[in-house]
Amino acid sequence: MRLAHARTAAGDVPVVSHDQRWFDLRPLTAAIAPATLSPTALAGIRTALDADELPEVDAPTAYAPPLSGIGKIVCIGLNYQDHAAETNTPPPDEPILFLKAPDTVVGPDDDVLIPRTSVKTDYEVELAVVIGTTARYLPSAEHAAAYIAGYAISNDVSERAFQIERGGQWDKGKNCETFNPFGPWLVTPDEAGDPQDLALRLSVNGELRQNGTTKDMIFGVHEVVRYVSQFMTLYPGDVINTGTPAGVALGRPDGAFLRDGDVVELEISGLGRQRQIFRQA
Amino acid sequence: MRLAHARTAAGDVPVVSHDQRWFDLRPLTAAIAPATLSPTALAGIRTALDADELPEVDAPTAYAPPLSGIGKIVCIGLNYQDHAAETNTPPPDEPILFLKAPDTVVGPDDDVLIPRTSVKTDYEVELAVVIGTTARYLPSAEHAAAYIAGYAISNDVSERAFQIERGGQWDKGKNCETFNPFGPWLVTPDEAGDPQDLALRLSVNGELRQNGTTKDMIFGVHEVVRYVSQFMTLYPGDVINTGTPAGVALGRPDGAFLRDGDVVELEISGLGRQRQIFRQA
Repeated sequence: MRLAHARTAAGDVPVVSHDQRWFDLRPLTAAIAPATLSPTALAGIRTALDADELPEVDAPTAYAPPLSGIGKIVCIGLNYQDHAAETNTPPPDEPILFLKAPDTVVGPDDDVLIPRTSVKTDYEVELAVVIGTTARYLPSAEHAAAYIAGYAISNDVSERAFQIERGGQWDKGKNCETFNPFGPWLVTPDEAGDPQDLALRLSVNGELRQNGTTKDMIFGVHEVVRYVSQFMTLYPGDVINTGTPAGVALGRPDGAFLRDGDVVELEISGLGRQRQIFRQA
Repeated sequence: MRLAHARTAAGDVPVVSHDQRWFDLRPLTAAIAPATLSPTALAGIRTALDADELPEVDAPTAYAPPLSGIGKIVCIGLNYQDHAAETNTPPPDEPILFLKAPDTVVGPDDDVLIPRTSVKTDYEVELAVVIGTTARYLPSAEHAAAYIAGYAISNDVSERAFQIERGGQWDKGKNCETFNPFGPWLVTPDEAGDPQDLALRLSVNGELRQNGTTKDMIFGVHEVVRYVSQFMTLYPGDVINTGTPAGVALGRPDGAFLRDGDVVELEISGLGRQRQIFRQA
């Protein structure tokens, strides 16, 4: 299934897609929220679809983020060999973790604000994992799949000077307003397929900048979920941004950071597309 | 005013203290939430108190965290000269920022869980600033006071091996479950007094470990709010933990980290006291 919030003139409407058709989720829930992501709740949606109990609607033409009430966003740093290499950093021995606040989330096609005084605003296409069941101290990566409700696209927008040159921790360059476009869909694992075989692409003004595959992750999705659960409890509605492949502006000799008016387009196979215009804040 | 959630057999009750007496806030709100912290809402509480419109209740005997729906917790690292010195770190040129997820918050007297595999669980008494009004790009520290709804105590519990020795960013050792005891009260600025003249104390099993004053902050409260607002938008219900003075276990030659059964007591003048028992997760 693909879960989404259709942005309509009458407000955001929770919808679900099945066999190329779209259905209104409001008979089951007012919004796609953490409680919607439990195995029981997702099974309820499936049952309602199979029983043809949901009203069919037109395919959405605009999207809000596909999840309300995100608890936290855990990000994995330098999780692709080629991205570590382009930033002149040795591949990490274990996952690097940092946080984004949920208030950075915007819809997949919303404008992104370049912070005032920013000179190094950058993009990062990432596979986002959405947690459906509380996870603590998972004993192995094999256990992780049961805790995942679905997948989505995140653009882990980053201000590199704030992140790296202003003293201290990366969070300073990761939490500017609008810095996490998310969606369009939350795709359940059965429909997303093998999370280690997804193509990721990102272009700026039509020029392909990132062209990777989740095959190249240093730490795979299931291992990442296991690892994070040793350090923090993952709750339904938490999101993990699993890292970005090579091609970010930081790694380019031309220092091609984003400027007012730039158009960034992202896609991950099976998870849809995003398109943002970057605007000066 | 002191705002709090009294923990009672019938559930958490929002209460307010005025002239040593306590009053039930439920005629105005079901809980102390971000919307309760706006200047208008706080003025409404004051008006109701002055008009004697709130039912008087017994002083609370147990406390939940004094704020529901915290959006994000921004933490300031190494913000006291003596703490930077004890960790063998030069004082920062500008504030170091990192994040704690709101799901780490527990009541001021709740048990704190020592993570499995932890050997360096540490304490940090901190003045917490609670935001009442959305703050973006504040032009000067003098503007910051108007955005602050109140103050509280945070114990910024930290696992030093996770934070420093496991590769990457501090967040890894700052976000374990229960790692942010918060409260007991949210004290409005008029009652808290000068935020740069508050005494902070923390003891472990009755031994005084931290004994500082907010006079020794490197970056004062108002400057911290201004600074953070350049990098992220601060929303009502966001919390800033403003750093800890010297005396943490990390800075002691005896490496006196916390163990199962240890009792940690914290106080900040005018903001109340906390008492936690640390338990193995």
